[in-house]
Parts: sequence; structure tokens; C-alpha cells
Amino acid sequence: MAVQTVASSTDSTVDLGPAAALSCRECGHRVPLGPVFACEECFGPLEIAYDFSGYDTEKLRQRIEAGPANIWRYAPLLPVPADVADKPNINPGWTKLVKADNLARELGVTGGLYVKDDSGNPTHSFKDRVVAQALEAARAFGFTTLSCSSTGNLAGAVGAAAARAGLRSCVFIPHDLEQGKVVMAAIYGGELVGIEGNYDDVNRFCSELIGDPAGEGWGFVNVNLRPYYAEGSKTLAYEICEQLGWRLPDQLVVPIASGSQLTKIDKGLQELIKLGLVEDKPYKIFGAQAEGCSPVSTAFKAGHDVVRPQKPDTIAKSLAIGNPADGPYVLDIARRTGGAVEDVTDAEIVQAIKLLARTEGVFAETAGGVTVGVTKKLIESGVLDPTRTTVVLNTGDGLKTLDAVAGTGLTATIRPNLDSFREAGLA
Amino acid sequence: MAVQTVASSTDSTVDLGPAAALSCRECGHRVPLGPVFACEECFGPLEIAYDFSGYDTEKLRQRIEAGPANIWRYAPLLPVPADVADKPNINPGWTKLVKADNLARELGVTGGLYVKDDSGNPTHSFKDRVVAQALEAARAFGFTTLSCSSTGNLAGAVGAAAARAGLRSCVFIPHDLEQGKVVMAAIYGGELVGIEGNYDDVNRFCSELIGDPAGEGWGFVNVNLRPYYAEGSKTLAYEICEQLGWRLPDQLVVPIASGSQLTKIDKGLQELIKLGLVEDKPYKIFGAQAEGCSPVSTAFKAGHDVVRPQKPDTIAKSLAIGNPADGPYVLDIARRTGGAVEDVTDAEIVQAIKLLARTEGVFAETAGGVTVGVTKKLIESGVLDPTRTTVVLNTGDGLKTLDAVAGTGLTATIRPNLDSFREAGLA
Repeated sequence: MAVQTVASSTDSTVDLGPAAALSCRECGHRVPLGPVFACEECFGPLEIAYDFSGYDTEKLRQRIEAGPANIWRYAPLLPVPADVADKPNINPGWTKLVKADNLARELGVTGGLYVKDDSGNPTHSFKDRVVAQALEAARAFGFTTLSCSSTGNLAGAVGAAAARAGLRSCVFIPHDLEQGKVVMAAIYGGELVGIEGNYDDVNRFCSELIGDPAGEGWGFVNVNLRPYYAEGSKTLAYEICEQLGWRLPDQLVVPIASGSQLTKIDKGLQELIKLGLVEDKPYKIFGAQAEGCSPVSTAFKAGHDVVRPQKPDTIAKSLAIGNPADGPYVLDIARRTGGAVEDVTDAEIVQAIKLLARTEGVFAETAGGVTVGVTKKLIESGVLDPTRTTVVLNTGDGLKTLDAVAGTGLTATIRPNLDSFREAGLA
Repeated sequence: MAVQTVASSTDSTVDLGPAAALSCRECGHRVPLGPVFACEECFGPLEIAYDFSGYDTEKLRQRIEAGPANIWRYAPLLPVPADVADKPNINPGWTKLVKADNLARELGVTGGLYVKDDSGNPTHSFKDRVVAQALEAARAFGFTTLSCSSTGNLAGAVGAAAARAGLRSCVFIPHDLEQGKVVMAAIYGGELVGIEGNYDDVNRFCSELIGDPAGEGWGFVNVNLRPYYAEGSKTLAYEICEQLGWRLPDQLVVPIASGSQLTKIDKGLQELIKLGLVEDKPYKIFGAQAEGCSPVSTAFKAGHDVVRPQKPDTIAKSLAIGNPADGPYVLDIARRTGGAVEDVTDAEIVQAIKLLARTEGVFAETAGGVTVGVTKKLIESGVLDPTRTTVVLNTGDGLKTLDAVAGTGLTATIRPNLDSFREAGLA
């Protein structure tokens, strides 16, 4: 942590809009904005503290509505400079909130069912939201290399954002990843370094690099830039409410990997309430995991406050974090809001991917299969109320996890004539 | 053609907004709106004739700007009912117009270079634009099955749109397509029929089916619904101009498959001029082909008016139409506007995909490699003016043509320690 403290000697002229300081989620200790992520007092996670004073609700709403069709419409609520929309970035967000009437009918939801479909982001996952934030922080702190450890979606998002911004990128991945994933990460032309080891080895190496002079000038989006990066998930909450007509949904179903996304969605909803942009009313947040990586779901069901790590074994690889850093906060939020945490099997994930595609024409990544599958399960068990407005997140793209549904194929094979067509019962 | 004429007994109550009739592109013969595509007088292609009378320019502009963030903002200019945005459809469009400053620097463009990136559409290609139109026509004509022949992008777009709309879909493909493409087409749960034969056999079979009672109630998006389908490409022109601040670009680089997209972009630009939504000024349209399927480019260079069919052999499979129906019209437009038609080799396509990804963080399909590669070639040969505002189309997504860049990979492999990192020269 020594190097972190050195790095926290922040330039007080840094302009990240309404971001006022970093504040420890555990002990509340505040430090100036800088590339640090852990509290020097208690090692708790640092997060952004804002100064939203002086905001007029109606003016803010008008400013947002007149803003660009991407996350920068919410610049006044994010740790970014006011002119962020004019800088080269990948400009994710303002993805579709799909009114899923067909899916609602199949699941028996009568109160309105929506899918927030983040497959429409530039590199087709929600990671573009968080990386776009981290890029602005990297620029503010004068970093010249954008980096991360990754096994998939994050690598592409970092590569694309760095390319657009004209920064160097250097992404670390396990050396034996599938060729398709390597291509998706390599195409943006940055350094793509294979580490001889597994994902844990990659992570350990990155932590070592941050503490070494060789890592000077490097912004690791999900390590030393994590407090900024994480705020990107708030934009999901903002967009959902604005797209519902500045209204809180009653129920949200959110996937859990590290748990950060779920906690920041809750933070975003609370901000909208405090700013008067939505009417205050109860909402419930439900967390969704794959059974093969369900440490938070397990803790929730057992009534525990502590999350016991699990070795992941599931097709939902983008959610396969066995020791989720924000797990305890997720438990807090699920319990406080009256939600729950549930998990589904790999078979249920595949069924849910197909269900969503068949009913709404949305081809989700395995993570979307997890949330849709959990939604179905929670309705069947009576935990989720089908008469209330419900929003389900799809955070990624089915094109990136084709293997999961590889069994899907032709419904018939015929010869090129009408007799063969009729014989197949297709007429 | 007998069945077509029968099918053209149009219900005069059909509501497709400003679409007034079908008009033959060759002889001008008009027929009522219906599921027909060829002129009964001369067999020329039918296209939509509009009634835009009574439109006030400023009111129209305001109505568009206040519309949804998808193609339905242009509903007053499309063959769709006025309430189209409220019906279940995949709602494509309003994709990013990326200001490609890094690419401009590499290519020496000083007049402003933009990439219209249609990989952001729901199924990640421009086909969503045309299928969304065809779906509205299918509904208007009471069709219950949405169909097409396809080898890729179109199959996914039709499957997704039919799923959302609650229509049956039945898509015909060659039976031996790659597994990945089959999965992408099959996931939406419609009928996916493999035809024992090549793509030509598939097409021939579809024409036979349209003429048979078994095909009753079937809307083939690119056959009997083609006049409606094709209009979707106009929205590319509308969006580009609106995103430029209601201004015509000086130069556009558009891929050529059937040539329909290029001709409809020209039609869209002409409409904007006539409606007073943009100031009239000259613009040049450049067509882009792969050398391995360059019949229009070949005809352009030879000064011919007729396009001689070619057997396609290129990695740009989404453009591999050897006998492009709208080829002669493309030649007309390129010559009339002072543009050109050019082609690039498969190697140049791959280089261009990498160039665009490295400079702008946009991972294009091979078709995008064709347009970027042709842009580069036309600048180098002095045909395209680098001092003028230029828009290059990317009509698809790199995730769908990973094979084309399969050679892209790790830039280094290291052991998980700093010594190995330094040895690799990465510090």
C-alpha cells in the first residue's frame, strides 16, 4: 500500500466535475481525488464523494434531456469534466430499455417487464460504461497507458477506449484463452500480453506491477482507477429511470460478478431520489448468480453477512468471480430493499438465453441468461411480484458466448424443391 | 409473375404513412401498394412513391428531432404507419456517427472524416434497418410468416424482428453454413431450414415458394417485400445529415452488395434536399467492393453501363453478390455525382479492419474493411478529396467475421513476474 499512498498526492487542480474527494465506504475517511482505491486508515474501498450542492432539479433534468444520446448526458452526476462529451471516448450508454411484452406474457408478469439491453454498447457489453469513466480519470491523472487484467469483455472495452483516446493500452490475459477472445482483445492494436498462469496469477502480477516503478503512468481501470471506473454503473440506474419517464422501477434484477454493479445501481437510484429527479418510493433489488459461482446467493440464503469464496465452475464466465469484493454490500442492499439473491444452473441459463431471444429478439450473453433465468425462478417461487414494474439487466452480447448455445441449429434440412418442403411439414 | 399480379390486388385501406403507391424505376408505371416487386409492364424494379405534400420544413425538422432515438424519428419519410414507434419492432438506427480524427490523421484527411457505425444496431448490422421496414409492410399486408434467404446478417435480423413482433419466421440457408452463423440465426427460435444446395439454389427455391400456394401469407423481406425493405437504407442518409447538423457531407463511401443501399442513400439525400431539411450542394457517392466480387467496380472503370456478373471469391461475404440487381443504378449515381467505384483485395480488407480498430476502437465486419480500404485507396489515388467532409459506412460487426482476422493475437507471452515483463521490453 506504500506506493498507493505516494500516488495519492493528488494534484488539487484535477477537474473531474462534481467529484469532490474519495471517501472510504467503511470508515468515511476522506482523501483528495487520486489514483488510489483502498483507505489508508482501514483498507476499506474508496468511492467517489460528490458535491451536488447548488443543483436545481428542473434545470438539471432539462440539461440531461438535452444532452447527447450516451452516458455523458449525466456528466453533472459523474466524476468527469464538464466538457467530457467533446473528448475522444467511446461514448457508451443510452442503450435500449426494451419493453418485453412477449416475455412478460410467458412469465406471467402483468406490471410491466423491461430488459435493459447493454449489448448495444460499442464493444457490446456494459464494461464500456465503466471503462469510459476510467479513461477520463486516467487522462485527469496524466496516465499514458490504460491497462487491466481480463478474460473477456473488459479487454475489448479497454482496447477500444484507449485506441479512440490515443492512449497506449496493455491488457493482461491468461495465455491460453480461446482464440476468439484473443482476437476480440487484440484487434484494437494495443499490447496484449499472455501470462503463463491462470486468471489469479494475472491479477497478482498486475498488483505487483502497480507497486513497481515499471507501472508508473499506468492506469489499471479496475485497480488503481477502480473508484472512478465503478461509478460507470450508476448510469444504468439513471438511464432506466429516465427511460421509464423519470420513475423508479419497483423491482430490478441485476447480475453479480464482483457485486460492484449492483451497489452502484443502488447508489445511482438513491442519488436520483435525493436530487428530486424521481419520486421517492420503495424499490427492491434482486441479485442474480450462476449456481456454479453463487457465493453471494449462498450467503443470502444462509442469512450470513460474510461471503465465503467459491471456486467458479459455470458457463457464465463474465460473472465467475468466486470471491466478490462487494459481496457484503450486495447482501446489505438486497436485505435493505426487500430483494433477494438467487442462482440458476447452467442448463437454466441456456434455457433463459433462448427464452429471451425467442420472445424479444434479444440475444444475450450468458450473464443475461442468468438474470432472465433468476427472474423466472423468483416469479415461480413468489419472491418477485409479477404485478410490479420489473427491469432485468442484460449486460452483454450473445455473439461473445456462442459456445453456450452451440447446440442450437437447423430445425429442418430439405432439398431445394416444394415437395421436400411439404414433406418436412413446413407449409 | 402471375401470382405477383394476383397478390397486387392491394387493400386500399393499407396504412403505410406517406407511401402513396409503387412506381416502376424504369417506366414509371404506378400500381397500388402491395406485396409486389416487379413492374407488370416492363419487369423493372418497383419502388415506393411518396406523398410528401403539405410538409412544413421547420415543423418536420422539429418533429424529427423530438422523435425516438431510432429510425422511427423519420417515420414521416418512410413507408410505415404514423404510430410505428408504438408497435413491437426491433427499432434500429440512430447509430453513432464517429468523428474519426485518428483515422483522418493516418489517411491525411483534413476536411473531417466520420464513420457511420451500424454495428450498434440490435443484431449488429445495417440489415436491422431494412428488416424493420419489411416487418411493417408484412403487418400491413396481413402476412403471418416473415422469411428470407440468407447466408448471415439478414437471417439474424429477420429472426429477431419476427420474434419481437410475434410473427412466425422461416429462414432458408445453405445447409452447410458454419456453425457460428447457424447459431446466430437459430437462436431466435424461428424455423431455420437448411437447403441442400448453394445460395443460388436457396434463392431459386424461395422464388418458387412465393409462386406457390404454400407460400401464401409469407413475406419474404428481400423478395415480395423488397420495395419496402429497401427504403430502410434511406435512414442512413437521414441520420448522417442530421448528425452532421442537418448538413450534406461532401463525400460518402458506401459498400456495394446488391447496390440497393447506395441507391437508397442517394434517394434519401435527394429527399432531404427537396424537403429543405438540408441546403442543396454537390455531394459525391463512392461505391466500394472487394476485388473478389467487383462487377460494378469493373464496369465503372471500363466505362460500361452494364454490369457483367462475376463468381464471388472474397472474405467479404456480406458483399459477395456477383450479379448485383442495382449495379446499373449505382454506376449512374457514381457518375452523376462525380464519385467513383473502387475495389480492394482481401489483404487490404484485413489491413483496413485493423486500421479502423487501432485508430478508432471500432471493430468492423469485412464490409467495413472494404469501405475503409477503398477510402484509403481513393485518397492515395487522388480521386477522393481529403479536404472535404467524408463519411465512411461500416455496415456490420467484426464479431461476426472473426475468421477474417484470426491471425491477430498476443503481442507477447510472459511469466507472471516483473523480470519476465522487463525482459519482454514492455516496461
